[in-house]
Amino acid sequence: MKKPLILVTNDDGITAPGIKNLIDVARQIGEVVVVAPDSPQSGMGHAITIHHPLRLKESKIFGPDIPAYECSGTPVDCVKLAKNVLLKDREVDLCVSGINHGSNSSINIIYSGTLSAAMEASLEGIPSIGFSLLDFSYHADFEQAKPYIKQLMEYVLDKGIGDGNLLNVNIPNIPFEEIKGMKVCRQANARWVEEFEEKLDPHGQKYYWLTGKFVNKDEGHDTDVWALDNGYISVVPSMHDLTNYKAIPMLSDIETVPTP
Amino acid sequence: MKKPLILVTNDDGITAPGIKNLIDVARQIGEVVVVAPDSPQSGMGHAITIHHPLRLKESKIFGPDIPAYECSGTPVDCVKLAKNVLLKDREVDLCVSGINHGSNSSINIIYSGTLSAAMEASLEGIPSIGFSLLDFSYHADFEQAKPYIKQLMEYVLDKGIGDGNLLNVNIPNIPFEEIKGMKVCRQANARWVEEFEEKLDPHGQKYYWLTGKFVNKDEGHDTDVWALDNGYISVVPSMHDLTNYKAIPMLSDIETVPTP
Repeated sequence: MKKPLILVTNDDGITAPGIKNLIDVARQIGEVVVVAPDSPQSGMGHAITIHHPLRLKESKIFGPDIPAYECSGTPVDCVKLAKNVLLKDREVDLCVSGINHGSNSSINIIYSGTLSAAMEASLEGIPSIGFSLLDFSYHADFEQAKPYIKQLMEYVLDKGIGDGNLLNVNIPNIPFEEIKGMKVCRQANARWVEEFEEKLDPHGQKYYWLTGKFVNKDEGHDTDVWALDNGYISVVPSMHDLTNYKAIPMLSDIETVPTP
Repeated sequence: MKKPLILVTNDDGITAPGIKNLIDVARQIGEVVVVAPDSPQSGMGHAITIHHPLRLKESKIFGPDIPAYECSGTPVDCVKLAKNVLLKDREVDLCVSGINHGSNSSINIIYSGTLSAAMEASLEGIPSIGFSLLDFSYHADFEQAKPYIKQLMEYVLDKGIGDGNLLNVNIPNIPFEEIKGMKVCRQANARWVEEFEEKLDPHGQKYYWLTGKFVNKDEGHDTDVWALDNGYISVVPSMHDLTNYKAIPMLSDIETVPTP
């Protein structure tokens, strides 16, 4: 049987330990091509590069057997270039993004470059998974996550997840034997509460650092935040349709407002 | 009655004609505060600035009566700074973003800085609307849109649109008398097909410009693309929950995969 073609990307940049660990798993399953940002791109969301040209540079960072490219753009740019330039004559069977250093549960999906890359792949018709480990450290230990990551890749390659869909997978930072399994869940209704740090530069001008804390008031036991807090790996099937279908009938009186 | 407080932002930057036109309408209804990027931020999606500090600079561009600030960050940064620094002791009644020069219908919502700013406001609990006119030109004529924009602002201030919701409003580029009215609809299932332009720099190195065409294969008459093609202003109630609820039961067998 032909090996599946797996595109690997991330948002922490091509030198981050997380992507190295993801490649370790992906190469056990398929043929791997890596296209990842040449610098950290956390928090880039679904940004694309319109006003500058983009560059791709071959990299041997993962050894002679793994074709790898570093890209000057955002995670979404990486996926667009991979699909439409580097791999334009081939079918990509799976895109995996990560392993992100830190959580992408709940609302983080819209700020996350990791998940936006996976979403872009899903828009291109490529089944895709974004992986995150709840440990921001550069020296995070990804070992406990690997067997689950392999299972999920095999599951998606085998069964598919439907057009335009992706999986947002978060892994708790606990030892392997304490992980209770995987839970398919919804995105918790949580958000960031910002607290900007105000400083003065040497010229007496103010500037601000974005900081904040994650606040979850969603008490459901069917959410990703609950699953992670309770020792599960959270798997949220996600998509790109932001329509609030429930609100459509509620707003129908907008249509009957008389013409100005 | 106290005038409502309206936060105005955009992604084309504080000097774009679109935001000037939006302010013209907003000041008829309420007290206006403007926080907008100091440079064009199209395609920034939901990007936030983590690795650099942010700056705010007061601007008199809209005259002495309109407090306005230009921000060194993304559209989402603008909203976060407005809510948490400039207006932290006040309640913002409405956030309007735009008027964007060009369409933000369908999948454009995830790439658009205009809509991401509106979504950020909605996450902060502020009812919000993103406005776009289907004309990329700097000299676009926003006049035909203004009566509808005013109606929509009044509607949202009067009735609300529920927590965490925003309206994605697109306005066709046709004369006022040809606009048939407003249609509440869903986001069309369309996407961009990329065609990168490959060039060589003076050193013989390749670089790529992102270009693409918008392809809509969604034939529904209940979509924003259909509404715009047929002379309506499209109003899509949108939200930040990307969970694909239909897929949750379909994927439940992931949970029963035996522990590795």
